[in-house]
Formats: sequence, C-alpha cells, structure tokens
Amino acid sequence: MSDLIITIARQNGSGGREVGKILADLLKVKCYDQEILAEAAEESGISLQEIEQKEERTSRTNMFFYGIPAPNPVFVAQSKAIETLASKGPCVFVGRCADYVLRERGDVIKVFIKAPIEARVKRSSERNGISEKEAFARVKDKDSERALYYQRYTGIVWGTVDNYDLTIDTGTIGVENAAKLIVEYARMSGYEI
Amino acid sequence: MSDLIITIARQNGSGGREVGKILADLLKVKCYDQEILAEAAEESGISLQEIEQKEERTSRTNMFFYGIPAPNPVFVAQSKAIETLASKGPCVFVGRCADYVLRERGDVIKVFIKAPIEARVKRSSERNGISEKEAFARVKDKDSERALYYQRYTGIVWGTVDNYDLTIDTGTIGVENAAKLIVEYARMSGYEI
Repeated sequence: MSDLIITIARQNGSGGREVGKILADLLKVKCYDQEILAEAAEESGISLQEIEQKEERTSRTNMFFYGIPAPNPVFVAQSKAIETLASKGPCVFVGRCADYVLRERGDVIKVFIKAPIEARVKRSSERNGISEKEAFARVKDKDSERALYYQRYTGIVWGTVDNYDLTIDTGTIGVENAAKLIVEYARMSGYEI
Repeated sequence: MSDLIITIARQNGSGGREVGKILADLLKVKCYDQEILAEAAEESGISLQEIEQKEERTSRTNMFFYGIPAPNPVFVAQSKAIETLASKGPCVFVGRCADYVLRERGDVIKVFIKAPIEARVKRSSERNGISEKEAFARVKDKDSERALYYQRYTGIVWGTVDNYDLTIDTGTIGVENAAKLIVEYARMSGYEI
C-alpha cells in the first residue's frame, strides 16, 4: 500500500484501541499507542513515567480555558513523536490528537470509534474488573478528560463529525467489522490495499 | 431483507440526498424525501405549499431557545408522516429529523453524510448554477437552518457523533461508494441484504 496513515480517536470503552490493532494487522503496518509515549520520552528527555502521569490528566488544569494555551512540553513531545513515527511509513495511530497533529498531510484517514453508553460500560466493567456503576463513572471521566485535552490543544471540539472522515459505532457490528469497514473506506479512497 | 430503516442526515452540499437515492436503489426500497412533505400535508390538512415554506425555515424563530418548545404543527405532521411511512416497510429517509422521530425503533441505522467545505461549495455551485461565493453562503445558511431546526425539536445538537451509527465523508470516496459502505454496515449489523 502507499503511505496511508490512519488515526483513530475513540470514546472510552468503544473498543477503539482494539479496532486500531486489528486494522494494523489487516494492513500489515504498525499500530502506535503506548509507543507514542516512549518515543516522546526519548525525544523530550522527560521520563516515560512523568509523561504517562501527565498525559490526558493535563486537561484537569485550566479546564475553563477556551483558546489554545502556551505549548505544554508533554503535548509538544507527543506531537513530535507522532510526526517522527508517521515519517517512517504507513501506520495506525490511536488517540493523542494524532488527527490534529497530522492535519497538514494529505495521506491521512481520520476515524472516530464510538458505541452506545451501555455497551461501553459493559466493556469497561469486564476489561477493568469493576462494577457497572464504577465503569459508568470511569467511562464518563475518561471521555471528559479526552474532550478537554483535545479542545485545549487543538481549539476544536472533540467528537464533532466535521473532524473525521469516518465515524463508526461498534455497538452492533463489533471491533473486527469496524476494522474491515475502515479498510473498505481506504480502498474506496484509492489506496491499494 | 428484514424491516431495516435507514435515516440519512446530511450537511448541505455533501451529496446526502443522492446517497439516499442510490442506497434505496441498491436495497430496492423507497427513499422518502419530498414524499414526507406530501404525506404530512395529507395527514395534517396543512397545504403542501405551506409546509414547504415553513419547513426548516421554522428554525428562524426562537433561535435562542434551548429547550424543546411547544409542538409545532408542521413538525408534528412531518413526524406522523415519517412514522406512517416507516410502518409500511423497509425504506430510506433523508433529513427531517427522521433519526430522532424513529429513535424508539430497534431496526434503524442512523447515518450522517458530510464532506469538506470546499467540496460542498463546488457541488452546490454546480447544482444550483450559482457562483462559489454565493454557494458558500448558501451552504452555511442551510447547515445553520438544519442545526437550529434539529436542536429546536429534538433538544440534541445536530452533527454530534453520538447521534449516528455511521458518519461518512463523501469528499474522497463519492456518493456511490458511500451508499455501498452503508450497505456493508447494514450487512455487518446482521441484516440480510
């Protein structure tokens, strides 16, 4: 395939991370998720532990700031890591505002993965071994963090259809079919896969 | 196929109406668009001309009302028409808040069709025989009307990913491929097509 890059943003508990992994397997390319953090640590000299702690939680500060704040070293390091990894060839990115970081490239398909709240709570409860009540709070909390983090650094509202080429609900079709549908969309976009 | 109903909401100039027609042809079912208005006129006794004039333009009033206002006769008539048409069997609806009207049914796939602003302006300019500058104003105006109309009667923000099972950008893949992708999604959802 040519240099196609696919970014996946996802609601917590929607299975977006799994979709990214399955998709990368189907396309025989790398899926970057945690790797972005490791790369960012190396690039920036900030420890991986520190980056993990600050990552996404960053949104907790300045919650009512609606413009784009002064660059945050963790966000800058992650952005550089995403650009570096993208320059290595076709791949899949999960999260970390990759759609925004790579917005100037023409070879990016931007996907958003979602699911009904009931399905997300069930998935989170099973995956994390917590009650459905705890899972509900966790799902809402994580989504809120992502939305704030995204808006803080991009100035764009997270989860608006305008940001994505394709938005898929995994609730009925599941994660494997969602990955296949992305491949189909990429083929329709002219990529030889 | 079983009683699958597909609703299509769309940005102006995205080709959503064409997607609906192609999709209905592929599925060999009816596509309701203008028909909803005729049916609403018959049901309500309000003239078709009056409904056409009031339709969507309704949003111009009470622009800053954020709750759900008292039922408007045109919206009520359209909602009844949508329910009546849906009860006749599998079909495709384009616009008119059909996703919201049919939200209690389990056999509905809700689709949103979008495209980059440049592609939408080009399509609108060609279709309506107007300049790109005029088309830009028209596209923005129509989207604004739809968003206000939708929010006024449903209390939900139009164009939020949470409202839809599938959101497709037609900018790169075109309207025919978008229709095919919806068929694929429906198959993955368990409908025999």
